[in-house]
Amino acid sequence: MIEHSAFVVAPWTLCETDLHLDILAQTESIFALSNGHIGVRGNLDEGEPHGLPGTYLNGVYELHPLPYAEISYGLPESGQTVVNVTNGKIIRLLVDDEPFDVRYGELHSHERILDLRAGTLRRTAEWTSPAHRRVRVTSTRLVSFTHRSILAILYEVEPLDGPATLVVQSELVTNEQLPAHTGDPRVAVALESVFESEANICRGKTSLLVHKTRQSGLRVATAMTHAIEGSDKLHTFGETSDDIARFVATEKLRPGQKLRLVKFVAYGWSLERTLPSMRDQVLAALVTASDTGWEGLVAEQRAYLDDFWARADVEVEGDTQLQQAVRFGLFSVLSAGARAETRAIPAKGLTGDGYSGHCFWDTEMYVLPVLTYTIPEAAADALRWRHSTLPIARRRAKDLGLAGAAFPWRTIHGEECSGYWPAGTAAFHINADIADAALRYVAATEDEAFERNTGLEILVETARLWRSLGHFDFQGNFRIDGVTGPDEYSAVSDNNVFTNLMAQRNMQGAAETCARHVDKARELGVTADEMASWRAAASRVFVPFDERLGVHPQAEGFTEHDQWDFEATRPDQYPLLLHFPYFDIYRKQVVKQADLVLAMGLCPTAFTPEQKRRNFDYYERITVRDSSLSACVQAILAAEAGHLRLAFDYAAEAALIDLEDRNHNARDGLHVASLAGAWLAFVFGFGGMRTHCSVLEFAPRLPEGLTRIAFSVTRRNRRLHVTFDAHEATYTLEDHQGSLRLAHHGEEFTLEDGKPVKRAIPPAPILEPPTQPFGRAPQRRSPG
Amino acid sequence: MIEHSAFVVAPWTLCETDLHLDILAQTESIFALSNGHIGVRGNLDEGEPHGLPGTYLNGVYELHPLPYAEISYGLPESGQTVVNVTNGKIIRLLVDDEPFDVRYGELHSHERILDLRAGTLRRTAEWTSPAHRRVRVTSTRLVSFTHRSILAILYEVEPLDGPATLVVQSELVTNEQLPAHTGDPRVAVALESVFESEANICRGKTSLLVHKTRQSGLRVATAMTHAIEGSDKLHTFGETSDDIARFVATEKLRPGQKLRLVKFVAYGWSLERTLPSMRDQVLAALVTASDTGWEGLVAEQRAYLDDFWARADVEVEGDTQLQQAVRFGLFSVLSAGARAETRAIPAKGLTGDGYSGHCFWDTEMYVLPVLTYTIPEAAADALRWRHSTLPIARRRAKDLGLAGAAFPWRTIHGEECSGYWPAGTAAFHINADIADAALRYVAATEDEAFERNTGLEILVETARLWRSLGHFDFQGNFRIDGVTGPDEYSAVSDNNVFTNLMAQRNMQGAAETCARHVDKARELGVTADEMASWRAAASRVFVPFDERLGVHPQAEGFTEHDQWDFEATRPDQYPLLLHFPYFDIYRKQVVKQADLVLAMGLCPTAFTPEQKRRNFDYYERITVRDSSLSACVQAILAAEAGHLRLAFDYAAEAALIDLEDRNHNARDGLHVASLAGAWLAFVFGFGGMRTHCSVLEFAPRLPEGLTRIAFSVTRRNRRLHVTFDAHEATYTLEDHQGSLRLAHHGEEFTLEDGKPVKRAIPPAPILEPPTQPFGRAPQRRSPG
Repeated sequence: MIEHSAFVVAPWTLCETDLHLDILAQTESIFALSNGHIGVRGNLDEGEPHGLPGTYLNGVYELHPLPYAEISYGLPESGQTVVNVTNGKIIRLLVDDEPFDVRYGELHSHERILDLRAGTLRRTAEWTSPAHRRVRVTSTRLVSFTHRSILAILYEVEPLDGPATLVVQSELVTNEQLPAHTGDPRVAVALESVFESEANICRGKTSLLVHKTRQSGLRVATAMTHAIEGSDKLHTFGETSDDIARFVATEKLRPGQKLRLVKFVAYGWSLERTLPSMRDQVLAALVTASDTGWEGLVAEQRAYLDDFWARADVEVEGDTQLQQAVRFGLFSVLSAGARAETRAIPAKGLTGDGYSGHCFWDTEMYVLPVLTYTIPEAAADALRWRHSTLPIARRRAKDLGLAGAAFPWRTIHGEECSGYWPAGTAAFHINADIADAALRYVAATEDEAFERNTGLEILVETARLWRSLGHFDFQGNFRIDGVTGPDEYSAVSDNNVFTNLMAQRNMQGAAETCARHVDKARELGVTADEMASWRAAASRVFVPFDERLGVHPQAEGFTEHDQWDFEATRPDQYPLLLHFPYFDIYRKQVVKQADLVLAMGLCPTAFTPEQKRRNFDYYERITVRDSSLSACVQAILAAEAGHLRLAFDYAAEAALIDLEDRNHNARDGLHVASLAGAWLAFVFGFGGMRTHCSVLEFAPRLPEGLTRIAFSVTRRNRRLHVTFDAHEATYTLEDHQGSLRLAHHGEEFTLEDGKPVKRAIPPAPILEPPTQPFGRAPQRRSPG
Repeated sequence: MIEHSAFVVAPWTLCETDLHLDILAQTESIFALSNGHIGVRGNLDEGEPHGLPGTYLNGVYELHPLPYAEISYGLPESGQTVVNVTNGKIIRLLVDDEPFDVRYGELHSHERILDLRAGTLRRTAEWTSPAHRRVRVTSTRLVSFTHRSILAILYEVEPLDGPATLVVQSELVTNEQLPAHTGDPRVAVALESVFESEANICRGKTSLLVHKTRQSGLRVATAMTHAIEGSDKLHTFGETSDDIARFVATEKLRPGQKLRLVKFVAYGWSLERTLPSMRDQVLAALVTASDTGWEGLVAEQRAYLDDFWARADVEVEGDTQLQQAVRFGLFSVLSAGARAETRAIPAKGLTGDGYSGHCFWDTEMYVLPVLTYTIPEAAADALRWRHSTLPIARRRAKDLGLAGAAFPWRTIHGEECSGYWPAGTAAFHINADIADAALRYVAATEDEAFERNTGLEILVETARLWRSLGHFDFQGNFRIDGVTGPDEYSAVSDNNVFTNLMAQRNMQGAAETCARHVDKARELGVTADEMASWRAAASRVFVPFDERLGVHPQAEGFTEHDQWDFEATRPDQYPLLLHFPYFDIYRKQVVKQADLVLAMGLCPTAFTPEQKRRNFDYYERITVRDSSLSACVQAILAAEAGHLRLAFDYAAEAALIDLEDRNHNARDGLHVASLAGAWLAFVFGFGGMRTHCSVLEFAPRLPEGLTRIAFSVTRRNRRLHVTFDAHEATYTLEDHQGSLRLAHHGEEFTLEDGKPVKRAIPPAPILEPPTQPFGRAPQRRSPG
């Protein structure tokens, strides 16, 4: 937990005014920079101290064997884990032979600012060396959104109280030593010395390292070059060996003089390309970057982000900290997904090695909705990556005795890497989640080329999976038995409501999409009979209901299970999975994360208002939110029910998950889905956006504590801006001609370009607030 | 599969007339000798060729880490595996410098006979060496039932066609090299070089090795001494090193002369005792054994077995092969359990390293019923071992958040060694199985001291477990959710009928036993309230029933699951667990082994006759018998239903499981529970014995193919003999005064000592035979 207030509250920046070594790993995650293609943690320039050194390239992983105490058929034998690649951030400094290390000498001031509009991390430190020489060190770092293989750093140092001999060592370091593994199952598998050197080249200010991972055989090339300004006494040289490249600049400076170094680092990686081609690729990237120059890169970065914020910003008026958090969240989603470009978007983005760098279902269910309505081209790319893994998913389905394709529960490259099948392979809902993301993207964009070339095949193969995974019973119900839903505190149950409803949508969607592209469908071997069988199964999907309690069990039998003894559970026993055996958790009514409640959010028409109300209250009492994926969903449904205060608390929890380290593991990387979830909480929650009808529905309501909320969504190439206070909402169509059919609290209207529409907001119902498990109510957010 | 008829059919011996190297590993299991304390596989005297060299000491195991691809709370970190200890069987022979090896030269004849009344394995071979000298080698081996730490071998060799120089090397060999692991999950974990040498001593014909296991720290002492007869040219010497002790005898013999060596081997092991005390212990055991002498040991062995057969024999008239198999089975049960004496009885006895030498629930459910009614003192000892592990089981329950004691699913020493919890820890029924065995033993023996000192605490701690594991629902039913029953093709289900009924018996039995020993119960902290809560839970245990189908689902929801596609399953895809993922098996109606059917056998009054009939037919159609624990249970219930032919087929399957290697893994050791199950099939099946009332009930019926069945059971110190043909049964009380209340096909009577009672057998009903899954009907046994 980040106990003290680590960051200055400001709407567009995240500013840390003191260096807190106790939360260094957490701030490294928060100050990470990424464009979805490359990611660097917010490690200090000089490398040490560090929490976790981290530089990641999307798709660069190492293989390792998955061990089992007892083997059985179909378990994946090989795992994939993200690896810390060549560190290009390192710039070490010696002041009169004393290494600049904040742990020694005296640190007078230390400030780090993540600027969400500039897309840069700026650091300023004033330090007196143990030998009593005071210097100011300033660095500004960016991972370019416009040059996707480029990391650039402006590094400046000046003596303040007398002359000093400065040595600056700018390095590339491969096979860095990493801290020991903690034993927490949510942390990465630690692999040592994964890279084998293939080449190292040094030419003046430019040098290059090429390595290959030992098992996965991925070739990684890293090159750096430098622009440096100093006096004529400046002396520089370069040197390289297998795992290190070093550019050294040394100069004696007086106060008022400054050494200014710009470092450009380029990364390239490939499974197939040769050493010479990789070498040339990164050297070429360096050329364009240094031609653009530092100022050029900064300007491009700003322009890119100005455009992004115009499309994606959520204004949260009345609570500046939450405003900051929501924007930080959006920045993090952008950083994770902007330039992933047909590679996976991992759960942690490229901010840490948590969950071994794997991508899960939350990419499609939490991150892609945000991208779909803000930068839809990034959502399409993410789905194109899934599509590219279809051959692997088809093989997996075959191994499992199923038709179609079975996407992996967790992976980097596409192969199933889950070593615990009840909460891995059995969570088949990921297939419907991917299908849903494809349907959502097409509905939001009308991107017919995507539907034909990408969406259709995903839908067909996943529909085939469901058809073979479920079966009809003698009453004619289509049942899906023995699977695991989103809530990981139950597993391998029959007829999980979320799974069944999402499978229904998947099969329906596949049939409808095939009907629109009969020629393409035929190419995939789809027959009219097959489409009919999807429709038949979809129409009879079984949704269990507990008549006695008047609620839906999240899976058959769930509401018969014993209660969890929340009163006897100590706060330090959460998350439960680290303190209780699965067998005990599975057989009781305790919910890790929204499951039935998520089903109500995604399939609103499958429940009556009365069922929604009763279900929400029922699950609210037993949901402990041990997953970061829960709060934002609860926020959406709480807002829908009219529990606005509760929704506000949950929205804040989702948004502040990492800035306040609420899950105690921000050190391993950011919770990108929860940060995306903050957007969802504002847009789907307070904005009440629903997309299941042909009109785009809104039901805005402002929680106490805020004075105004505003957001934009892109739909069918039209940008809609929504702003509302407690009494009135204004809808505006921006940038484009045309019109859009909308609904406001159930009342439909047509919004014309240039003609904003205002609508009054009906008062919220007065409701008894629902209760949470003992000790698990969300932190109450005091009204701004 | 043992395809060819490997053994001569004879009622009291198992004779192999040719050496089949392709089934060497299987015959090593079948020709294993054990007394429950030490066990030696039927390896050839000269050590090679071998399938799997094996010498096992009950309780000697090594620890090894249990690895997991994904860790979670409560998984055992350390496994235990039986280890191949110092091999004392080895006697190598050189004939004119040519090693006696059946793979070279010419083997004229080779015969091995396991004599079930003598308790010996006798081998005779005539062999011509590659240098053309013909010799006869004869060895007789026994593991003494009366000297429990002694293995003895009589080894004789004589030249047949000319003079020969013979060298006999009698050895102790530690850390033997073992064949590589196969990857079959049912096979042992292979550990290499587990023993560290502590001492080696050689004095003339006697030598001694002391070792310690590296991780588990068990000290093992092995000593051998020899009696040898030869001419005055006989030369002998001994030598030892860390891992080998060797006694060498050499002599030049002419045809008609014979070298005769008797080897006595003594084993001792302990976690606590010192090297000197272990050394002296095994040397002392050697003294008594060599004082008794070879003939003395043979005579004692015969007397011990005469007594055993008088108490335990089952006569199967009309099918000599089945007669042989049933007796072989009983001999194997005796060998596994006779002298285990407060150590575990493993699933394979001490005949191989299958299942890592672990003990499971089948000891209590299959082996102990046989021992209880034949050599009850061995059953008591086995339960005393369980009792001795209560501190470990209490710790395990605490770790799992439960009250009382949770016995391990698989173990050697008492700690849970199951690395796959859904089919390990979740199979809580083992606790009720142990309790049931204790209740059965007390009911059969009226051993009040055992009940007070051993049974009571087992019952109390397991009842506490159930009370905390289950819960009352709002209808007042006591539910046990999220557990795994005997059938391992389903897992983690709610309200498994077998588990619930056995838990009911456990809690009832605990309450009744406490009421009989209130003072002892108080010492264990049992209050009247606690007893009342067991009774309350027992009286309301929930037993699901499918009204629509008129059958019991083996667990809630089971009968709603999809059908397994048996027609599409190839014969080589059995056992299914090696060819299909658990997720697929669990969600479908396919049964590995009797579960609901076992519940009907053990709790006959919980089902109406109509329910039994419908249930039997229903489960018969979906039970594939991928477990060796199934056939005998199906035999019992088939016999009860009147399907006598089917019962006969199943009884034969259970009895012949290893002699015909029907499960293709006899190489790893015998299926002791199935062999015990053959006895159960005859006594509980064809004899129709039921023990749940105060009178002992029988309902004998003879299957077609047999002319007579007879067996004895010991009950309350009285030995009852039952013999029946197709028409009439005769009940006789032997050995003791007094009387016994019996029932014959529902009609009660009192049997007086010395006054046999004859009763007519009512004709069996004529029934439609039930069907089995496609391709899974048992092998039809052609009438004798």
